[in-house]
Amino acid sequence: MTAQTPALSPPWLAEVKFDEQGLIPAISQDAQTNQILMVAWMNAESLAETVQTGRAVFWSRSRKRLWRKGEESGHVQRLVELRLDCDADVLLLKVEQLGGIACHTGRASCFYRRLDTTDGLSEWVSVDPVLKDPELIYK
Amino acid sequence: MTAQTPALSPPWLAEVKFDEQGLIPAISQDAQTNQILMVAWMNAESLAETVQTGRAVFWSRSRKRLWRKGEESGHVQRLVELRLDCDADVLLLKVEQLGGIACHTGRASCFYRRLDTTDGLSEWVSVDPVLKDPELIYK
Repeated sequence: MTAQTPALSPPWLAEVKFDEQGLIPAISQDAQTNQILMVAWMNAESLAETVQTGRAVFWSRSRKRLWRKGEESGHVQRLVELRLDCDADVLLLKVEQLGGIACHTGRASCFYRRLDTTDGLSEWVSVDPVLKDPELIYK
Repeated sequence: MTAQTPALSPPWLAEVKFDEQGLIPAISQDAQTNQILMVAWMNAESLAETVQTGRAVFWSRSRKRLWRKGEESGHVQRLVELRLDCDADVLLLKVEQLGGIACHTGRASCFYRRLDTTDGLSEWVSVDPVLKDPELIYK
């Protein structure tokens, strides 16, 4: 039940192209620094609630339910600006990240691994610090 | 044939989680300004070529073939840094965007539409300028 579309879909929502599973990828970007924080998925319901409440709400594919970002961690994302790309199939949320931590690992951003290459050998290296122990975030 | 994995997949590539269609979303971000330029898809082959050549190569889902960004437009993306998120299912390319235009509409970024709300009515508004006529880009 991911493709649930609100009964009376407003025109702006009808312009958004959800995939065959009723989902669209959404990037969260820090509105101040432009740092990319995370990417998650939205269905029509979560997108409508995000716009209505001004707080990022995603669709959790693993838990198959609405995921109000920060509902456990307190790391809520306040929506500053919402953008749509040329193909209308990717969303960009410029947000204020409460607590300064978006990632469940306790880092500012989920994109903390960089591909480094030494002597022709490449590997993913964690290059950003853990700001808070996840055990203290999810207790 | 999107799930094609190179015969001898190096460990760094094996860590990347492609979806059931063999694809992963990849964000291109301007390495200087942090502006998000576009989102496209990669398969293992395009990712390997991107890392090998230092030039962004995607998988075109519509044309079902490798898409060497800029092959028609000249708007090549030089790879500055490659990042992977905590779930290993989204890539972030920090790039130098040649020509300063990523979008096929002739704009710097594909995310040129903003949701604006006036008197409770929301609509997508194009807020970024066209820098070059697409007819002059693709001729």
